[in-house]
Amino acid sequence: MCSTLSKDVPDIEALLELNPKIKPIATVQPTIITKKEKLKWKRNDSKSSDKIFSLRNNFDDVKHTTLSERGALKEAARCLKCADAPCQKSCPTQIDIKSFITSISNKNYYGAAKAIFSDNPLGLTCGMVCPTSDLCVGGCNLAATEEGPINIGGLQQFATDVFRMMNLPQIREPGATRPPFHDTKIALIGSGPASLSCATFLGRIGYSNITIFEKESYLGGLSSSEIPQYRLPLSSVNFEIQLVKDLGVKFITGQPLSKNNLTIQKLRSDGYRVIFIGIGHPEANIIPIFRDLDEKMGFYTSKTFLPRVSYGSKSGLCSGCNMRNLPQLYGNVIVLGAGDTAFDCATAALRCGARKVFVIFRRGFTNIRAVPEEMQLAVEEKCEFIPFQSPKNVQIDGGRIVGMSFYRNEQTENGSWVEDEEQIIKIKCDFIISAFGSGLYDKDVIDVLSPIEFDEGGHPIIDLKTMQTTDPDIFCGGDFAGIAETTVESVNDGKTAAWYMHQRIQNYFGLKTESVPKLPKFFTRIDEVDLSVEMCGLKFENPFGLASAPPTTSATMIRRAFEAGWGFVVTKTFSLYKDIVTNVSPRIIRGCTSRHLYGPEQGSFLNIELISEKSDLYWIQSIRELKRDFPSKILIASIMCSYNRKDWTTLSKMAESAGADALELNLSCPHGMGESGMGLACGQDPVLVRDISSWIRAAVKIPFFIKLTPNITNIVDIAKAAFEGKADGVAAINSVSGLMGVKANGEPWPAIGNHKLTTYGGVTGNATRPVGLRAVSAIAQALPNFPILGIGGIESADVSLQYLQCGATVLQICSAVQNQDFTVIDDYITGLKALLYLKNMKKLKDWDGQSPPTPVHQKGKPVYPIKINNKSVPNFGKFLDMKKQAIVELKVQNANQNIIDCIEREDEMITVPKIKDIIGTSLKYIGPFKKLNTEEQKVALINDDMCINCGKCYMTCNDSGYQAIQFDKETHIPFVTEDCTGCTLCLSVCPIIDCISMVEKTISHVIKRGMEYNEIKNGF
Amino acid sequence: MCSTLSKDVPDIEALLELNPKIKPIATVQPTIITKKEKLKWKRNDSKSSDKIFSLRNNFDDVKHTTLSERGALKEAARCLKCADAPCQKSCPTQIDIKSFITSISNKNYYGAAKAIFSDNPLGLTCGMVCPTSDLCVGGCNLAATEEGPINIGGLQQFATDVFRMMNLPQIREPGATRPPFHDTKIALIGSGPASLSCATFLGRIGYSNITIFEKESYLGGLSSSEIPQYRLPLSSVNFEIQLVKDLGVKFITGQPLSKNNLTIQKLRSDGYRVIFIGIGHPEANIIPIFRDLDEKMGFYTSKTFLPRVSYGSKSGLCSGCNMRNLPQLYGNVIVLGAGDTAFDCATAALRCGARKVFVIFRRGFTNIRAVPEEMQLAVEEKCEFIPFQSPKNVQIDGGRIVGMSFYRNEQTENGSWVEDEEQIIKIKCDFIISAFGSGLYDKDVIDVLSPIEFDEGGHPIIDLKTMQTTDPDIFCGGDFAGIAETTVESVNDGKTAAWYMHQRIQNYFGLKTESVPKLPKFFTRIDEVDLSVEMCGLKFENPFGLASAPPTTSATMIRRAFEAGWGFVVTKTFSLYKDIVTNVSPRIIRGCTSRHLYGPEQGSFLNIELISEKSDLYWIQSIRELKRDFPSKILIASIMCSYNRKDWTTLSKMAESAGADALELNLSCPHGMGESGMGLACGQDPVLVRDISSWIRAAVKIPFFIKLTPNITNIVDIAKAAFEGKADGVAAINSVSGLMGVKANGEPWPAIGNHKLTTYGGVTGNATRPVGLRAVSAIAQALPNFPILGIGGIESADVSLQYLQCGATVLQICSAVQNQDFTVIDDYITGLKALLYLKNMKKLKDWDGQSPPTPVHQKGKPVYPIKINNKSVPNFGKFLDMKKQAIVELKVQNANQNIIDCIEREDEMITVPKIKDIIGTSLKYIGPFKKLNTEEQKVALINDDMCINCGKCYMTCNDSGYQAIQFDKETHIPFVTEDCTGCTLCLSVCPIIDCISMVEKTISHVIKRGMEYNEIKNGF
Repeated sequence: MCSTLSKDVPDIEALLELNPKIKPIATVQPTIITKKEKLKWKRNDSKSSDKIFSLRNNFDDVKHTTLSERGALKEAARCLKCADAPCQKSCPTQIDIKSFITSISNKNYYGAAKAIFSDNPLGLTCGMVCPTSDLCVGGCNLAATEEGPINIGGLQQFATDVFRMMNLPQIREPGATRPPFHDTKIALIGSGPASLSCATFLGRIGYSNITIFEKESYLGGLSSSEIPQYRLPLSSVNFEIQLVKDLGVKFITGQPLSKNNLTIQKLRSDGYRVIFIGIGHPEANIIPIFRDLDEKMGFYTSKTFLPRVSYGSKSGLCSGCNMRNLPQLYGNVIVLGAGDTAFDCATAALRCGARKVFVIFRRGFTNIRAVPEEMQLAVEEKCEFIPFQSPKNVQIDGGRIVGMSFYRNEQTENGSWVEDEEQIIKIKCDFIISAFGSGLYDKDVIDVLSPIEFDEGGHPIIDLKTMQTTDPDIFCGGDFAGIAETTVESVNDGKTAAWYMHQRIQNYFGLKTESVPKLPKFFTRIDEVDLSVEMCGLKFENPFGLASAPPTTSATMIRRAFEAGWGFVVTKTFSLYKDIVTNVSPRIIRGCTSRHLYGPEQGSFLNIELISEKSDLYWIQSIRELKRDFPSKILIASIMCSYNRKDWTTLSKMAESAGADALELNLSCPHGMGESGMGLACGQDPVLVRDISSWIRAAVKIPFFIKLTPNITNIVDIAKAAFEGKADGVAAINSVSGLMGVKANGEPWPAIGNHKLTTYGGVTGNATRPVGLRAVSAIAQALPNFPILGIGGIESADVSLQYLQCGATVLQICSAVQNQDFTVIDDYITGLKALLYLKNMKKLKDWDGQSPPTPVHQKGKPVYPIKINNKSVPNFGKFLDMKKQAIVELKVQNANQNIIDCIEREDEMITVPKIKDIIGTSLKYIGPFKKLNTEEQKVALINDDMCINCGKCYMTCNDSGYQAIQFDKETHIPFVTEDCTGCTLCLSVCPIIDCISMVEKTISHVIKRGMEYNEIKNGF
Repeated sequence: MCSTLSKDVPDIEALLELNPKIKPIATVQPTIITKKEKLKWKRNDSKSSDKIFSLRNNFDDVKHTTLSERGALKEAARCLKCADAPCQKSCPTQIDIKSFITSISNKNYYGAAKAIFSDNPLGLTCGMVCPTSDLCVGGCNLAATEEGPINIGGLQQFATDVFRMMNLPQIREPGATRPPFHDTKIALIGSGPASLSCATFLGRIGYSNITIFEKESYLGGLSSSEIPQYRLPLSSVNFEIQLVKDLGVKFITGQPLSKNNLTIQKLRSDGYRVIFIGIGHPEANIIPIFRDLDEKMGFYTSKTFLPRVSYGSKSGLCSGCNMRNLPQLYGNVIVLGAGDTAFDCATAALRCGARKVFVIFRRGFTNIRAVPEEMQLAVEEKCEFIPFQSPKNVQIDGGRIVGMSFYRNEQTENGSWVEDEEQIIKIKCDFIISAFGSGLYDKDVIDVLSPIEFDEGGHPIIDLKTMQTTDPDIFCGGDFAGIAETTVESVNDGKTAAWYMHQRIQNYFGLKTESVPKLPKFFTRIDEVDLSVEMCGLKFENPFGLASAPPTTSATMIRRAFEAGWGFVVTKTFSLYKDIVTNVSPRIIRGCTSRHLYGPEQGSFLNIELISEKSDLYWIQSIRELKRDFPSKILIASIMCSYNRKDWTTLSKMAESAGADALELNLSCPHGMGESGMGLACGQDPVLVRDISSWIRAAVKIPFFIKLTPNITNIVDIAKAAFEGKADGVAAINSVSGLMGVKANGEPWPAIGNHKLTTYGGVTGNATRPVGLRAVSAIAQALPNFPILGIGGIESADVSLQYLQCGATVLQICSAVQNQDFTVIDDYITGLKALLYLKNMKKLKDWDGQSPPTPVHQKGKPVYPIKINNKSVPNFGKFLDMKKQAIVELKVQNANQNIIDCIEREDEMITVPKIKDIIGTSLKYIGPFKKLNTEEQKVALINDDMCINCGKCYMTCNDSGYQAIQFDKETHIPFVTEDCTGCTLCLSVCPIIDCISMVEKTISHVIKRGMEYNEIKNGF
């Protein structure tokens, strides 16, 4: 008899060809063959390659920092969320970076955006253009690890961009009053970052008569006119301008400073009480040899070149003007300078048709002013760099630039620089772009800025603390003020000025402002959402509480938790003094359920900590103090006794008389206490639970809840016993009994004492969440309207919503605080508010919570759905070259067709659900297997354009599935065959979110039973 | 009454100052202040900084790729372990990279090193020096994600370096015979990478008379003489030479090729049958203008400079020679060239005293031959780069070089390069190092290589497939052969030649070799370890089996699993045809217990898959086929019926008669089947379990095991019932019943059909491991000698050992295969062999399994324990500068004191335990809480030198602990106070392995009870 069933048929054998196999031998492959073979798979530039793909007309995002949702989640997860975080201290606007990354990690993108915009109204712009290595990232503690610092800019961009897609207007702080004399007229000159920021904060404070005057026909200043579209798209700039408009700020365009038009004097006579000047540096610095050159000859400065590039690439920016075409460059282009602007000019020149760009600068590489990330792009795009060159003169022929000469610039031993006039190099070129910085030189403009005074260097004389000029009513910021070197510093100038302009106005009217500056945060209607919920007559201001656990070890900690905003707290469990305990150490260890994870976001902990070591008197006194100081907070006393009516009665009455709002009976501690007849020793027996419940019911009037153990065959039985014993509800779940692991020498961890003994402990955290959600939903289904306090791996608003929908009314948290600190409450509150608010937004119906639908992308950047010979091709080797070439052709055809995805502000009136409206809404979906439909089957569908060709889907389908995915030998693109049974493993292991989706099966569902009887009975 | 208990005392309030707080307002901080503030926290170079710290005498590791164990684990975890992995295809030696990274991720460093050395005998050297961006890393699919490609070189270095510390000799394949005529004399000339590799493979094949002739007094070729110590330490080179010696290869030094010494002719007359030439390119290419220059004048070539640097920095290399001092450089040094060697010369020059180094090259940056990572170091160390320069002449004054002149080199539009003799620059310099490549020019050497023939370019004429020269007995490789450009390609030349030299020898004697090249892998005594284990009379060749689950869906999959090396398989559960089932889809989903993890190494899955959809006939026939084809493998049939004796009897007899070695009774499936009275519906009741067990006992003679559900109050009760029913053992645990989550709109996942219904599923994978280990150990304690098949999050040899030590005899795996593929078995086998072997190695008694003790390090590099004013200082801002300065001074004092940590091969005879010896060895540590010692307390101790200043310890201690850690405002270094209670949370959240340890508490343990009664009873 030969094998038939247990051997793969030839088709499947062929399909399996690329499936991993164990190498029984060392491979012999001559060096010459691998030299060729490796080129097939190259994802980076080949050393020997001299291929250059034209960038003409290509203004697609080039930022390395751009992140997909997956990339953002991964990056946010590895952030350490440091104490006294150096990133924040290094951010000019002092964004609470640790907090916003925490929110991203928790999928609370609104919360993240709120934190960002609160301190920086141009958070999206800055996320895109900040030279972060010299700011926040420069201080990141993760630079001390092999993985390197966090991509903070990319995270900031991601969160604020998701908020942009929510399309919600900025509002003033709900309930805040406007300051006295809020209708004082305020003028801001220039609509760049400094003014936008200044106007925002003045608007948030409540000023209602703010006008920004802009000389151009468009807004945004340098962000619009000079930063290239591929680094900062116009849609982002417009979005942030719209946020300023939301606050009622007025904009007037076409208003240049000039004695015939706008002057300080005129503004004053028009009644503008305070004025902010944020006009930037409008004119390029020019060296004498360039004085007589013009565009027709091939000469640009950064100030003439970059705006032209913007007009030609940012549609809508210059809709009525006659400069809607890109400058047409060709041949060699010389860019002079080594600042950020020079590199922008270099890469922009490539997009205008330059064949070769030389960036030439006076000093060496070690002296380059730009941060590495600014220069990097020019390196990748194959610009050339020539250091140590001082401009000598320009060669002209037939009215066109044909070359330029330089002296060699040398550094002497004492460090000074000298030009050697004997060493001259000439470089042939067709265009020169000078990027030697900029300033304010226009006499007319300077005149009309009077009375403000300037120093000898041409900078306004200002108070660096307040941004006030020599005229106390006039403030300034940005490039004009001479301190800021970056957009974010300009934003901060405007922010700083806003406070002192407010102070100036109030002082003018004889009023005082608070002595410590206090600017309002960013708000939207989401912040008005009501998170309060009632349970057993208790009013919770929000559903988030600390579980009875290490975070509630002491009353002082509970006090700090209340101050931080937690809605309720369950005390650490205490017993009568006769039962007082003593802990062992070590006792709370990291879990290994997320493998070898060290640091932030531990997926689980295991503890063998007992109940509180503190006395009952301590807790009684503490409850008394806390309730006195926090009457609106809910304080639940967690108590424990053995199966002894007298003890339970005594202890519960003590707690009630101290003022506890409710009691939680710990009938579930899985370690230690059970051995003394307490904890889970009581909670695993319905009879005992019923008895204890009825004793307490008889003893106290306040509500009480039974904390349930998951270490039981059917948790619903215990909940029913509690219900029968007249408990007011249950808390589910306590920790899961477990052993985390032993070392290679057999010793356990934690190991106690010299004998290294251990005991089973309680597992907490995310690893227990599936058990928790199951318990809560099962109890909610069995006992409708019986309140449940949900516990088990709650670490975000995202998970909180799941617990609520599964039937919990309020939520208890422990491990997430152990992983971080009490401030997470802020994230949970903004997160849950956002989730409730977004629920009924029709325009976002395709979103999952705060996650927008995944766009077809690679690395977060949209991909062109390019097929070659009607087939999808991957992004490596010759296929990548083919794709790049196809994009080159596409861009040539579609010159000037860069579309702006400007979202129109459109107000959707929605009803926001209350917490009570969503409790238990998922229960209707959960039922027995027999209710599931076996006819409506799904199969997997792979998006080739998102695929990264790893073949994980293919491998799992082969060795754990149905051999239903082909994997192309050349392209490494997988393809799902008709053998797919919809098992979903491929989707489950795919590294890219939504690259694989489960879609309706359209062919008939035939089950391969291997061998069938004549009479087929479709059983089950 | 005022608060006393619930408010922090002033000391603690001060301690809490830096603890995170929620920002109620936007912060106003003037731009000028942050500009200064950020400098305090800088971890990277400041833009404006011109500080340069001397590197004189500093030969410490500079590689960015070096990894600590934590870094290696993190990097390995994110590797996708791709199908048909492009990294492997791009490795000249074809290392199975996917597999070795899998092993690192599983803490099987031996397995990783074995995979590496199997294909590349210089795996450590290559891990350190490979230009990976152009090799393996260039093909990494993760380049398509934001995180970028894997640091493959660093991982390779890490694994092989850990193996180096194990200090185990290489042996030939256990049991392999030597080939005929193995004592044929083989000569290799030159002891560089090519020869070492060639000799290794010839030695592994079994040749016993191999001699390597080396002209120098030391071995290693270019690795020793030219690659700087800071990139490749001599200890690593010597370690790999020792591995060659382990195979019996002889080395003779001081044997230059020369007509008076070594010649091909003489070797032949001495009886050497085949010869390999791997002499490299011994002479530098020199351009005419340098002909008359010498070292005294300040001129070096890379071939004269780099060996001198090596002699001066690698102690022991040149112990007897007169060049033990570094070349003493000063002033400006010009390095010419843009290859890898040029950058080595540049960075080495800084270590010899150069004040400023200029790297000058003929073409532009876009033409640089070196890969970016080679150039990067020179950039960071502030070398200057001058492109487009052609050497003109050298200026000499007083017998010393004082400057050099260059012509400008230009590329014309047609792409050709021309020198413009009118454009001349002069650069003052004190030294010139020419790095224009190398060759073989010595007529004497060329003569004595006769009869091999050379082409016009001076390269030997060779067959690129075999590395055979024009003389069929003479082979060659490395630089000499002219194909290899890197160490790893040289290694591969030697490897390729080895096979064809073997073929040549065998052919000479009229024998044939196999037609497909087949070189033996790397072996040590670890590979001789016996993993077999007996259970219930069944002999398992290893304890690893596939659980009854998706990986055993079909017989063809089981066949492939057996072929891959799995010791046993449990079939997917089947029932009688009358009970046949139909699955729904989707049904196997990713877990979210490790948060938002997409891609490799999912911490859990949840499935609602039923038992097999295939018929009983299919399985019976399959068992028959498989047992016939794999008689030595163990095949266990998993079966399921409802509580019905006839069904159980029928089905178990069918399976027995088909030849199943044993039965597993699935009394534990948590979803679906229970509703039909099967699975967990039977397994949660001891009475039913006992009954069914006794029915089966009566029906069959083969052993049978009850698969237990963890969804039960006390799993031991069910195990006891099985025992009483005469089952032969139990399998524990089946999946944990759970609900993984619901979406923001309330819908579950998986959602079945148009109504989106779901049912509770079974959670598998790491998240369930604590429950599994608890179950297994509890059953083992309760029922000694009752066999247990361990299940639950087993994903490595590391975890397997834990299960064995907790009482399991064999192990079942599912989720780990779903996460990857069947080949993981190879990792488990080498991993468990290594763990058993290392157990009794006294020299490694401080290791935990395969993990060496963590050295005091930052980023895997040793740190100098520098204190300033007797205080630890961190690695940022001014503190970093202070440290760097201290190191400069240290290096000046300790010139030439680079110590080599050469481990002497010392054979330790050890007894390797058998599997049976370790089963249950951890049980003695596990017991009730009351047995734990409350007197022997521990406290936390922080290693300041490993600290990365994140303050996670501080935060968790504040908000979840005892406010017992101070956090310095300036240095961000934490300090544990006397309030520490040893709770261990700080250690649990610290991102750095072993930065915090728990040490004995030396002060007396006083518990803060808050308020105490007069009579203190130390209860529990």
